Amino acid sequence: MAKNRHLNAEQMAAAQREISISEFFAKNRHLLGFDNPRKALLTTIKEAVDNSLDACEEAGILPEIVIEVHQLEEDRFRVVVEDDGPGIVEKQVPNIFGKLLYGSKFHSRRQSRGQQGIGISAAGLYGQLTTGRGPTIVSKTKRGKAHRFQIQLDLSKNRALITEDEVLPDWHRSHGTRFEVDLEASYQRGLRSVDDYVKQTAVVNPHARISYLAPGMEEPRIYERKVETVPPRGEEIKPHPYGVELGELIKMLRDTDCRWLSSFLKEEFCRVGPKVAKEILKEAGLGERAYPSRIARQEADRLYRAIQKTRISAPPTSCLSPIGEEQIREGLLKEADPDVVFVATRPPAVYRGNPFQIEVGIAWSKPGDTRLEVDSRGRIRKTKKRSVDTEDLLGAADEPVRVLRFANRVPLLFQQSSCAFTKAIIQTTWKNYGLQQSRGSLPVGSAVILVHMASVWVPFTSEAKEAIAPYPEILKEVKLAIQEAGRKLGAHVRKGKRIASEYEKRSYIEKYLPHVGIGLQEILGLPDVEREEVVERLRETLEENRKV
Amino acid sequence: MAKNRHLNAEQMAAAQREISISEFFAKNRHLLGFDNPRKALLTTIKEAVDNSLDACEEAGILPEIVIEVHQLEEDRFRVVVEDDGPGIVEKQVPNIFGKLLYGSKFHSRRQSRGQQGIGISAAGLYGQLTTGRGPTIVSKTKRGKAHRFQIQLDLSKNRALITEDEVLPDWHRSHGTRFEVDLEASYQRGLRSVDDYVKQTAVVNPHARISYLAPGMEEPRIYERKVETVPPRGEEIKPHPYGVELGELIKMLRDTDCRWLSSFLKEEFCRVGPKVAKEILKEAGLGERAYPSRIARQEADRLYRAIQKTRISAPPTSCLSPIGEEQIREGLLKEADPDVVFVATRPPAVYRGNPFQIEVGIAWSKPGDTRLEVDSRGRIRKTKKRSVDTEDLLGAADEPVRVLRFANRVPLLFQQSSCAFTKAIIQTTWKNYGLQQSRGSLPVGSAVILVHMASVWVPFTSEAKEAIAPYPEILKEVKLAIQEAGRKLGAHVRKGKRIASEYEKRSYIEKYLPHVGIGLQEILGLPDVEREEVVERLRETLEENRKV
Repeated sequence: MAKNRHLNAEQMAAAQREISISEFFAKNRHLLGFDNPRKALLTTIKEAVDNSLDACEEAGILPEIVIEVHQLEEDRFRVVVEDDGPGIVEKQVPNIFGKLLYGSKFHSRRQSRGQQGIGISAAGLYGQLTTGRGPTIVSKTKRGKAHRFQIQLDLSKNRALITEDEVLPDWHRSHGTRFEVDLEASYQRGLRSVDDYVKQTAVVNPHARISYLAPGMEEPRIYERKVETVPPRGEEIKPHPYGVELGELIKMLRDTDCRWLSSFLKEEFCRVGPKVAKEILKEAGLGERAYPSRIARQEADRLYRAIQKTRISAPPTSCLSPIGEEQIREGLLKEADPDVVFVATRPPAVYRGNPFQIEVGIAWSKPGDTRLEVDSRGRIRKTKKRSVDTEDLLGAADEPVRVLRFANRVPLLFQQSSCAFTKAIIQTTWKNYGLQQSRGSLPVGSAVILVHMASVWVPFTSEAKEAIAPYPEILKEVKLAIQEAGRKLGAHVRKGKRIASEYEKRSYIEKYLPHVGIGLQEILGLPDVEREEVVERLRETLEENRKV
Repeated sequence: MAKNRHLNAEQMAAAQREISISEFFAKNRHLLGFDNPRKALLTTIKEAVDNSLDACEEAGILPEIVIEVHQLEEDRFRVVVEDDGPGIVEKQVPNIFGKLLYGSKFHSRRQSRGQQGIGISAAGLYGQLTTGRGPTIVSKTKRGKAHRFQIQLDLSKNRALITEDEVLPDWHRSHGTRFEVDLEASYQRGLRSVDDYVKQTAVVNPHARISYLAPGMEEPRIYERKVETVPPRGEEIKPHPYGVELGELIKMLRDTDCRWLSSFLKEEFCRVGPKVAKEILKEAGLGERAYPSRIARQEADRLYRAIQKTRISAPPTSCLSPIGEEQIREGLLKEADPDVVFVATRPPAVYRGNPFQIEVGIAWSKPGDTRLEVDSRGRIRKTKKRSVDTEDLLGAADEPVRVLRFANRVPLLFQQSSCAFTKAIIQTTWKNYGLQQSRGSLPVGSAVILVHMASVWVPFTSEAKEAIAPYPEILKEVKLAIQEAGRKLGAHVRKGKRIASEYEKRSYIEKYLPHVGIGLQEILGLPDVEREEVVERLRETLEENRKV
């Protein structure tokens, strides 16, 4: 070991060397969502399920996913995630599961759950770090045989070796993948648990059938498929000119196969037709037939600035696959059991050249243990509500609202306070919409606010993909969606207050009318039948006049 | 471009490939602190200054650092950071400045500002992305000639090329490095600005002389050196057995040169002597002379569990270099101009095998525009305070306290709410210490709370190194340090309240005593001189009795 002596430049140089990405993330594993044993379990399952759902979507298969968590020792668990996806070809298995920064999604502008090529390898890495054992993969493609691979990650080289490879002639699936890993973890129920994650995943992926077995369960819990169509595979789009920085533009100019500047602009970008290309080049003072590869930095800079000045339509949004108003409403009604749900969908917008779309749902229940409703005849009905328990999505009326965050149909459970969605909710004036709120805090009330962002590239605040970076365009869109749903909520709450006060008045009437009847009977000497008729007519008259 | 069609496993495999770490961070540059133009400027300077200070410390040189920010166009700036450090040998220049994940600090267990081998290359990467131009480096080692290098980063290969190399025979330094980069940025004053960063850096690095020139300044602002000794270079330590996970232990067993298990334990870890090694091996049921390379996973697991069960002393803490109570006090007095400063230093502690140490300073001023002090004779003096302006560290009495966060002497300016330090402050009951506080919020008052963590490995919440991950051990130590300083503050505030009420009483006395004198004079027929004597004696008596 080096002693505490000073070094010169040559001695320093001798100590400098490359750091492998696996070593980097092993030491910084909290960046990947492996901060503690509880979160490690969730992150592992989440990464595997993301991959399964993505693979099924890409292959056009209705997903059937099996999630199992087995407790091996007090602090050790085995996680199994199995799907009926297309399978993975043999030679890619060590790369996909054992190499960080490897995959197909990073370089494509297409909506998918995974995007970094880190997650599932990180799960294997964490498992190996904490139990000494790398992950086990079973995979079968339609054409190939089922193999069972045991892999071992080599951290210093960021690669994996297959240490066992066994053909399984009788595997029960015709195609699919099974990921199995042992890891140090802890399993708990409640908020932000694996249970919570699976439930939320089922809500926003109604096309998937999910079977979930956790420690302590006798039988797996089944989330049945509710929709029989696979969501369309996200379409891939070309970069939008506004989203490309000067350095990237220079690289594109150097790498392109196009021979002319005008065809370069039209071929390599979306939303650039002959007219827009001409406009850009005129503004930049560059010829349409200039050679892209001969453009100097100063000229590229002119081109870059000309792009910013030219009016170019927003990128196509057919590449986005939102959850949909109906599915959000149904999901919230089913899972939160609220009085009402209001949903808002924004038109697609753009940040750094990436199209995205925001959807918001607000589920709300009137405080108190009864629910008041006005029926079609204008009568108020009072029904008993179920009591609030800790597993309920809708909390008590004096607690902060619950926020459900989703990015490309993946629930985000941690880092809530750093998330653009939360910031947008906090920056909204909820008093206008009938909820209490202190400055700088979430509103208070028996409500759930769901926010979903669909995008070809979600800017997460860390590799763990737990929160969304607060780009101004994203904040703005979330706020606008909240306002739209919020206004509907506000109208409902105000109406609810009117109904409540009305109800109170009516109960007085109901209470006192019989006494009025008796009084009248005594004064006018009416028979019983007539008294009841008078009371009934009085009640009808009063209800008529007070109709809400 | 791929159309929206479904793929089979073979087609998917064709699209899968490696992702270069440079491409990854270019797309995710907010992870590195380049979220927006303002932060990009700060991050660039911060990474360069961190490197300069580290290099000087390693070489035992008193740092002399020049920071310049030149505005080239509305949204383009040139940043220059120059030091008198040991310089960088020629062949390492493209690696250090152009390769992400490269350096000497990642693999060493030693306290330093940089630790990842990402920062300065990321600054060059951002510059090149936004202006098309890579960074320019001038460097001279004691033995070599000064060179000026222009480098260009190759993102897809995560490497850099030297595009220009010029010898500068007359460079003005005998050794040192100059880093220069153009970037898209914006420059603002105020909180979390570059100005703020430079000022805070000077406070916690009083051994450095810093010259700082920003847009709009006529002359550079000079922060003079206040201490003439270089802080000792952080000592490198071996891993502590408690901090090593099973997977890592297996790798160490495979890689070691030691022939016996007992020597493996003694040589490769700190704090393991013959007695502890024997105890561990006995607990694990393994022989002292077993060959490390022949230990199977199950045996390694036994060894791992035996380590957890054995009592091993905490890692050495001579490797830590805290700021020091005196320097914290002086820095806060100078920069915040408070009434009082209270400082607390915790003994070193350990998280995941890494030793660390927490220091806390609280600067506080009494609310209001006057300051009350008790002099040595027990008299209360009232002095006028300066008014609060936005550049002041100490805010108004009705605002949240200002938090100054430092990790290994580096100011942390962003992501305050995600930081373990902030969480610890919020979780402290400040009412006990005389400050107002709402639940879940920072305390309110005219106070500054400084927290410093010194460690051989700081667990940041992101590669941008803006906030510290809330490991339980770190949270605990910060809370204990806050409590220690807070108790002193509480005593002072309570005493201050007594002084204030005392002062009020005394002013009444001062006001009415002359009237009492006149009354006595009239009643007793005293001459003027005697009346004044009586009044003076009365005042002294009363002050004597009321002494605080």
